[in-house]
Amino acid sequence: MKLASFRDGSRDGQLIVVSRDLRTAHFATDAAPTLQRALDDWNFIAPQLQDLYDALNAGRAARPFEFSPAQCAAPLPRAYQWADGSAYVNHVELVRKARRAEMPETFWTDPLMYQGGSDDFLGPTDDIVCGSEAFGIDFEAEVAVVTGDVPMGATPAEAADGIRLLMLANDVSLRNLIPNELAKGFGFFQSKPATAFSPVAITPDELGPAWRDGMVHLPLVITWNGQVVGRPHAGTDMVFNFPRLISHLCKTRNCRAGSIVGSGTVSNKDAGAGYACIAEKRCLETIATGSASTGFMKFGDTIHIEMLDESGASLFGAIDQAVAIPTSV
Amino acid sequence: MKLASFRDGSRDGQLIVVSRDLRTAHFATDAAPTLQRALDDWNFIAPQLQDLYDALNAGRAARPFEFSPAQCAAPLPRAYQWADGSAYVNHVELVRKARRAEMPETFWTDPLMYQGGSDDFLGPTDDIVCGSEAFGIDFEAEVAVVTGDVPMGATPAEAADGIRLLMLANDVSLRNLIPNELAKGFGFFQSKPATAFSPVAITPDELGPAWRDGMVHLPLVITWNGQVVGRPHAGTDMVFNFPRLISHLCKTRNCRAGSIVGSGTVSNKDAGAGYACIAEKRCLETIATGSASTGFMKFGDTIHIEMLDESGASLFGAIDQAVAIPTSV
Repeated sequence: MKLASFRDGSRDGQLIVVSRDLRTAHFATDAAPTLQRALDDWNFIAPQLQDLYDALNAGRAARPFEFSPAQCAAPLPRAYQWADGSAYVNHVELVRKARRAEMPETFWTDPLMYQGGSDDFLGPTDDIVCGSEAFGIDFEAEVAVVTGDVPMGATPAEAADGIRLLMLANDVSLRNLIPNELAKGFGFFQSKPATAFSPVAITPDELGPAWRDGMVHLPLVITWNGQVVGRPHAGTDMVFNFPRLISHLCKTRNCRAGSIVGSGTVSNKDAGAGYACIAEKRCLETIATGSASTGFMKFGDTIHIEMLDESGASLFGAIDQAVAIPTSV
Repeated sequence: MKLASFRDGSRDGQLIVVSRDLRTAHFATDAAPTLQRALDDWNFIAPQLQDLYDALNAGRAARPFEFSPAQCAAPLPRAYQWADGSAYVNHVELVRKARRAEMPETFWTDPLMYQGGSDDFLGPTDDIVCGSEAFGIDFEAEVAVVTGDVPMGATPAEAADGIRLLMLANDVSLRNLIPNELAKGFGFFQSKPATAFSPVAITPDELGPAWRDGMVHLPLVITWNGQVVGRPHAGTDMVFNFPRLISHLCKTRNCRAGSIVGSGTVSNKDAGAGYACIAEKRCLETIATGSASTGFMKFGDTIHIEMLDESGASLFGAIDQAVAIPTSV
């Protein structure tokens, strides 16, 4: 099924069920007021949502309304956890290569993961508000899962059972703030502003055979200022699948319902797949010519991230954002 | 006022108001079911909680019951953000000195902060469950604040207005996992298991004149296996006060209600104050003798963290934990 959070002025929005073709929606308030509440008691609430989803798809739902991504907050407008991996190790290798640094061999066997801020996510069509272009504004197109409760020490197989929903993410990065921040040794902070998510979160069964081996076997489509710049395949070159990432997360602590775990920027070894973040394009330029020629995003730039199924239908709806200056500046 | 979350089997517990002397409590369900809900609408709900608090302290509350920290979850059993600073730069300098590394001068002017996991906090008397003593189990006694909404770009003065509550924290660290993890460049992850918090969160006015300049001017008392090992003063050597830490957090993003911001391990230059984490003791030993003689925590070890006011009364109640092996191991 497909779920979204309707923006009603509240902090968490109102849970809605969205039809498979993303044309209509229906309030799911009778089952759960918010998506977090549904995740808190998934085994009890999910079947009720599924019934409503089936009715909506069959044209039998009581009060359907037209679905609009612009009315949506992120499926979880705020969450208790946002842990982002770097599962497409090709991306990490390119970044290192561009700055002539060796990537440790262990990066192919031990997942990289950072803890992100999760108190204030952006909806799919919200502006990327940024104080300065000089921060080096970049998009990062990713796939993410939402989990149920997964206990400390869970194996990848156990973690796989904890995957409840899938989303797309734009993990916005401020590239020029990263070097100083990582040099301090404590990881990202100011260099990772609010992340945006796709209008709908979907259960894995919506992907049919494209969901297997703990990853999504379909390409993303990334369009920057109206130009398609990347079609990287999310099922290619993903070194650590989602169960593996969740198991990494759980090694020394429990993972609680509503945690979001990201894949990291999707990146294929085949350069013909284009790019899912500008930094990667710049790395390729640097490796080829010694310097980067593509600039980061400017105020007014747009970014569109989507995933289509084999028939060309949008699975998650689109992330469709523009970069904007803060209103108070 | 003093607030806590009564463990009732739900994920967020039930909001209770606790008397100033920590002897009695009263359900605050009429005002807000959970502490997060109170923080979501603080200006409306806080006055109602204050009325109940006044009545409870005056012996006029309708249905008071005996307060017990063992019945408490963390004041926020899960939160949308846990951002931990390293405001006592003395601690950072000692760690570097022990490993013969230079600390950059900018560490005195640019706060260090890491994003911690916030989906699964420990209550004040919960066991520190850890898979192995070999991980290097350490306590870290800290002061933390809970914020309201603070907008992106807030100055320290603006951030000061966003401070709603104060707590104590035990930011448990797995020291032997830190070097490899930090070497990967993405900050802490597995090396930071669940954090524990004091039984009650208190409004700054409870501290009277001990709350000034954006910090708490009182010593912590840290007792490890029944021995007092530290009485570091939280108002001494705090290089970045809480408004400054929150402003750092907000530079490129909004900070939403219910965010928890920590001070980092309290640490005084005066070695006579003892230590708030074992790592610091080991650093001092290493600097003095070339090697560390104090070991990390063992299964069964206990840690007690408390802060007393001038009259000797406990302000937050005590964090009182034991280290335990996972039941499934």
